[in-house]
Amino acid sequence: MSKKRVVIAGMGFGGLRAAKALAGDEFELIMIDRNNYHLFQPLLYQVATAGLEQEAIAYPLRALVRRWRGASFLLAEITGIDLAGKFVLTDSGTVPYDYLVIAAGSHTNFFGIKSVAEHAFDLKRLDQAEDLRNHILLLFEQASRESDPVRRSALLTFVIVGGGPTGVEFAGALRELIVYVLSQDHPDIAPSETRVLLVEAANSLLSAMPVDLQQYACRKLRIMGVEVLLENRVVGATAESVELYGGTVIASHTLVWSAGVAAADVAGFLSGVEHGAGGRVAVQADLSLKAHPEVFVVGDMAYFLEKGVPLPMMAPVAIQQGNYVARNILAREQGTSTHPFHYFDKGSMATIGRSSAVAVAAGVRFRGYSAWVAWLLLHLYYLIGFRNRLVVMMNWTYAYLFQERQVRLITAKKRRADSL
Amino acid sequence: MSKKRVVIAGMGFGGLRAAKALAGDEFELIMIDRNNYHLFQPLLYQVATAGLEQEAIAYPLRALVRRWRGASFLLAEITGIDLAGKFVLTDSGTVPYDYLVIAAGSHTNFFGIKSVAEHAFDLKRLDQAEDLRNHILLLFEQASRESDPVRRSALLTFVIVGGGPTGVEFAGALRELIVYVLSQDHPDIAPSETRVLLVEAANSLLSAMPVDLQQYACRKLRIMGVEVLLENRVVGATAESVELYGGTVIASHTLVWSAGVAAADVAGFLSGVEHGAGGRVAVQADLSLKAHPEVFVVGDMAYFLEKGVPLPMMAPVAIQQGNYVARNILAREQGTSTHPFHYFDKGSMATIGRSSAVAVAAGVRFRGYSAWVAWLLLHLYYLIGFRNRLVVMMNWTYAYLFQERQVRLITAKKRRADSL
Repeated sequence: MSKKRVVIAGMGFGGLRAAKALAGDEFELIMIDRNNYHLFQPLLYQVATAGLEQEAIAYPLRALVRRWRGASFLLAEITGIDLAGKFVLTDSGTVPYDYLVIAAGSHTNFFGIKSVAEHAFDLKRLDQAEDLRNHILLLFEQASRESDPVRRSALLTFVIVGGGPTGVEFAGALRELIVYVLSQDHPDIAPSETRVLLVEAANSLLSAMPVDLQQYACRKLRIMGVEVLLENRVVGATAESVELYGGTVIASHTLVWSAGVAAADVAGFLSGVEHGAGGRVAVQADLSLKAHPEVFVVGDMAYFLEKGVPLPMMAPVAIQQGNYVARNILAREQGTSTHPFHYFDKGSMATIGRSSAVAVAAGVRFRGYSAWVAWLLLHLYYLIGFRNRLVVMMNWTYAYLFQERQVRLITAKKRRADSL
Repeated sequence: MSKKRVVIAGMGFGGLRAAKALAGDEFELIMIDRNNYHLFQPLLYQVATAGLEQEAIAYPLRALVRRWRGASFLLAEITGIDLAGKFVLTDSGTVPYDYLVIAAGSHTNFFGIKSVAEHAFDLKRLDQAEDLRNHILLLFEQASRESDPVRRSALLTFVIVGGGPTGVEFAGALRELIVYVLSQDHPDIAPSETRVLLVEAANSLLSAMPVDLQQYACRKLRIMGVEVLLENRVVGATAESVELYGGTVIASHTLVWSAGVAAADVAGFLSGVEHGAGGRVAVQADLSLKAHPEVFVVGDMAYFLEKGVPLPMMAPVAIQQGNYVARNILAREQGTSTHPFHYFDKGSMATIGRSSAVAVAAGVRFRGYSAWVAWLLLHLYYLIGFRNRLVVMMNWTYAYLFQERQVRLITAKKRRADSL
């Protein structure tokens, strides 16, 4: 009897874990991704702020697949899923499956604000991060030779939307890039001439955190020189301005949007299934589709309620769901079953800047240096590949000791040709 | 009295050396480059063959300028030079000078073969190297799922033109990438299915080397599986084929051109000067222009005869000329003069592959392991920046020990949008 085939659509955190756990003699395993690498998204903001080279946070998928028995990789864009016929359609051909794990992640949600979608940078892909880095560095070069003070000020004003971990981490890292590096590179630009604004619709940053850590993060950012605007939101943008609710217009050439994500387009290819908020796909207690027990959805794409609340769209959820689905498939093949999926919340964390972070783990709150060291170690641990860990550690050590970021290269001069 | 201003146009090997030697209290120093980094061109081929990340061979110019007293940097494209008025025109304004050092390097010379210029890859810029890497990796992905054997063979055939150091080094590195890495990544592709052809018009590779080393290099490449075609040349190309002199057409999606360079466009902005072969600018014994003793040309752009033969367009010449011009300018300001420029040929080298290189130094010939180690150390030494040396050394060690190249990422899927 030939082996059953498991197809895994998307090799982010969820897909990768499922694949790793399913590799072996049991199944024929086909992994599909539009990129030939796994991307460590939580550090994308450091690529955008010239702290890391893009290669350090990406790992070639075929280097993993090589080591996994029964596994193969297909570089392809998924264009459809036929649940009845049990096959995945891609731009590189049709792939039939016995089991399907859909782990295609999410894309940025601009909530229908067209002008923002057109002009904002977002941080989901590697090329976007490199693009944003090029853009920031180029603005400083332009500001250096700009004599009109109004235009110069607009070039040096950066608006970030979204007070979640990504927004907080990016704002802190950008401020440090400006204060420690770019204002040294450009002696004619004082840090006080630059503005970094962080706009959040709610009345606090890091809404998932305990109140005292939220306040700590906000205070720290303000001390660093970030202007935190709470209970405020961006309603429009042009290439050279950002409009806030209420009509205030900020002259700025840079809008970074990290205010929300929605399920990847693949979710829309599933006909006859129920969709939750953000286009996420409603799943059963075992993460399978209602009418298709052989199809699972994990990670950002899955709409799964725990105690009546949908699980957040973040890496730890995807990792646990990927592992769970692999166990579930193995159990089914052995004629047994698994308990319903349960998310074990190990806590969350966000770094604010040099020696400063907030973290909650098992109900215990950390902040400052200890939280920062924990953040560094945990991110190194979750990075894939010895070489990448080494490169990242080296960059961090170098940055810590010398307050330097050597990856401040403008690698393309054309402005973000395909970032949207 | 205000300081005299020295403008240095181009921050390759020549410009960088001149700037470094002139930095201090003596002059106002303005460095112009179209990129914000110095590029270590001799290792570009390793970026193209997934051996190094692009960031490892580029160094931010402002990190240097910071440390140099009296120096400033202008990111700009040079659009003209007014020798009579003594100013440089750029897309970011006009820059007057007292002394001008033109060090704008060279671009690839396709010798007027339009179809080749349109379809060939060349290796002068960072984005071209990344582009070529993406292209090679993508072809293997396409070949993996290609069932037509004719088309598959074309995808896996690579033609390199030019038997100088770049062509030899690229051919060897590509062959090793295929044999050690890509054929492991793609178990369905045997190395014997792939072809790497190196086409050279002369009757030997590495024409500047002694005959026994030429033969050694050729033999080594052939053992590695590179098809070396001597006394042959490419006369045309399409996206999917390469035409040789005599009419032979090779089905191939990849033509890499390293058969020649010509002086950068800036050379054409100099009116009333004499141009040598390849558009290079004829200079006096002290590297200045005949009618403009305050203007110097160094490196690939300078046409300088030594014993009746023009100096080769390579880094060591540019380095020595950059240093010489700085000394010359300093001497003139002190009312003294310098001897005419003389190139001290320290030797040359080329790496062929793992543990294999050829080198000549002070008339002594090396080959094999010793030459290879010398090549590694010398290139590490000439790289700028401690971090870059560390990253490169780490990558080389990793590649040597594990026969792995972790930078095999396809960072863009659109095919070389702006490589020409």
